[in-house]
Amino acid sequence: MKQNIIFYQLFEAESSTYTYLIADKDTKEAALIDPVLETVERDLKLIEEAGLKLKYVLDTHVHADHITGAGMIRDRTGVKTGLSGHAGVDCADISLHDGDELFLGKHKIKVLETPGHTNTCLSYHFENMIFTGDALLIRGCGRTDFQQGSSEKLYNSVHEKIFTLPPETLIYPGHDYRGQTVSTVELEKKWNPRLGVSKTKSEFIKIMSELKLANPKKIHEAVPANMACGRIQGEQA
Amino acid sequence: MKQNIIFYQLFEAESSTYTYLIADKDTKEAALIDPVLETVERDLKLIEEAGLKLKYVLDTHVHADHITGAGMIRDRTGVKTGLSGHAGVDCADISLHDGDELFLGKHKIKVLETPGHTNTCLSYHFENMIFTGDALLIRGCGRTDFQQGSSEKLYNSVHEKIFTLPPETLIYPGHDYRGQTVSTVELEKKWNPRLGVSKTKSEFIKIMSELKLANPKKIHEAVPANMACGRIQGEQA
Repeated sequence: MKQNIIFYQLFEAESSTYTYLIADKDTKEAALIDPVLETVERDLKLIEEAGLKLKYVLDTHVHADHITGAGMIRDRTGVKTGLSGHAGVDCADISLHDGDELFLGKHKIKVLETPGHTNTCLSYHFENMIFTGDALLIRGCGRTDFQQGSSEKLYNSVHEKIFTLPPETLIYPGHDYRGQTVSTVELEKKWNPRLGVSKTKSEFIKIMSELKLANPKKIHEAVPANMACGRIQGEQA
Repeated sequence: MKQNIIFYQLFEAESSTYTYLIADKDTKEAALIDPVLETVERDLKLIEEAGLKLKYVLDTHVHADHITGAGMIRDRTGVKTGLSGHAGVDCADISLHDGDELFLGKHKIKVLETPGHTNTCLSYHFENMIFTGDALLIRGCGRTDFQQGSSEKLYNSVHEKIFTLPPETLIYPGHDYRGQTVSTVELEKKWNPRLGVSKTKSEFIKIMSELKLANPKKIHEAVPANMACGRIQGEQA
């Protein structure tokens, strides 16, 4: 663990999603970032065994590839859920905007709006770490071809909001498909093949326009469910 | 990264194996622990991109579930490979024994013999982290029913060598099958269902004797290959 904070990275294998548990070591106040519906039990058990008090459940965005565990955790624990205020999601308790600050003990989670993968993506900056969701992945980035994605906005978000952090800042992404767990601002600026400093904005836009990716398998299930904080349609009827 | 060291955890999904890259921030000297044959390219690329100088490739034991990348990395880079001196493996450059010390800059890797999963298992202690291979897993442990495994020895190894470390020591295992990435001595002493302090040695031996596990799929390929540092039989002919 880093000084005075507690940190756990957790992985959901089917969607290759990372969930993050961060906490203040003194007060034990904790936040869970991007929980997945299928691994809610595991995450709540860890929170209990580690003696933490869950204060926030935060999503980086309305996911298209998996269903968030936020709604289920709120139902079971009463903890507050947070999501972008621009997402139009009624079920979130806290509408987050650029520059907002949440606290775990004395430790600040700073909210950064980093749109581009979707138009309402947030990154969370906590101590020397940034949780980038699908805005910036390790040597990659999220696609920009649905949910009001924009390659131009994503380029600006990464270059203006993330690459301006100190070079040793640890980048913890929303996914990785190659078993990598962490990167740094320095390494992504140098080596990211799409967004590294050797690529111009127009080169990046061209790369993204030529990807021609199939839709995520779960998109038609996941997006509506996530607009309801992870409650599957019909479940509340 | 922790102070003055560089640390990367890497995951190989087919065998759910963790590989660890540790380095000294000043000299850039690095060690790779438990590389997997299939992910050697990824690991070498990261070492290059992070500007590190690989000094050691260390295996915690002769694996039965995947083939080590150690031999391939030595062939390609000339770096020294290390393994237990009791393993009877001719291909390793460094025969390691309990209490041995290897250095990355000023930072010490201390070798601990932790037999039980196999009779030649090592754990590596580096700063506030211990890489336990299959001796101690998160809320679990390696099986003890082949390769001269011994439940009694494993109990002693974990209780005498690992649980005597400071409670905040981070435990980084050789595998995890539930997306967990790290634990601590404190949490495993309290919550490990097999080896936690609520279980006696005889209870542990009984639990292990009743597991009745199938052999790992790759055992007949992996063990002979790993006895040759990951070279598949016939490859050198």
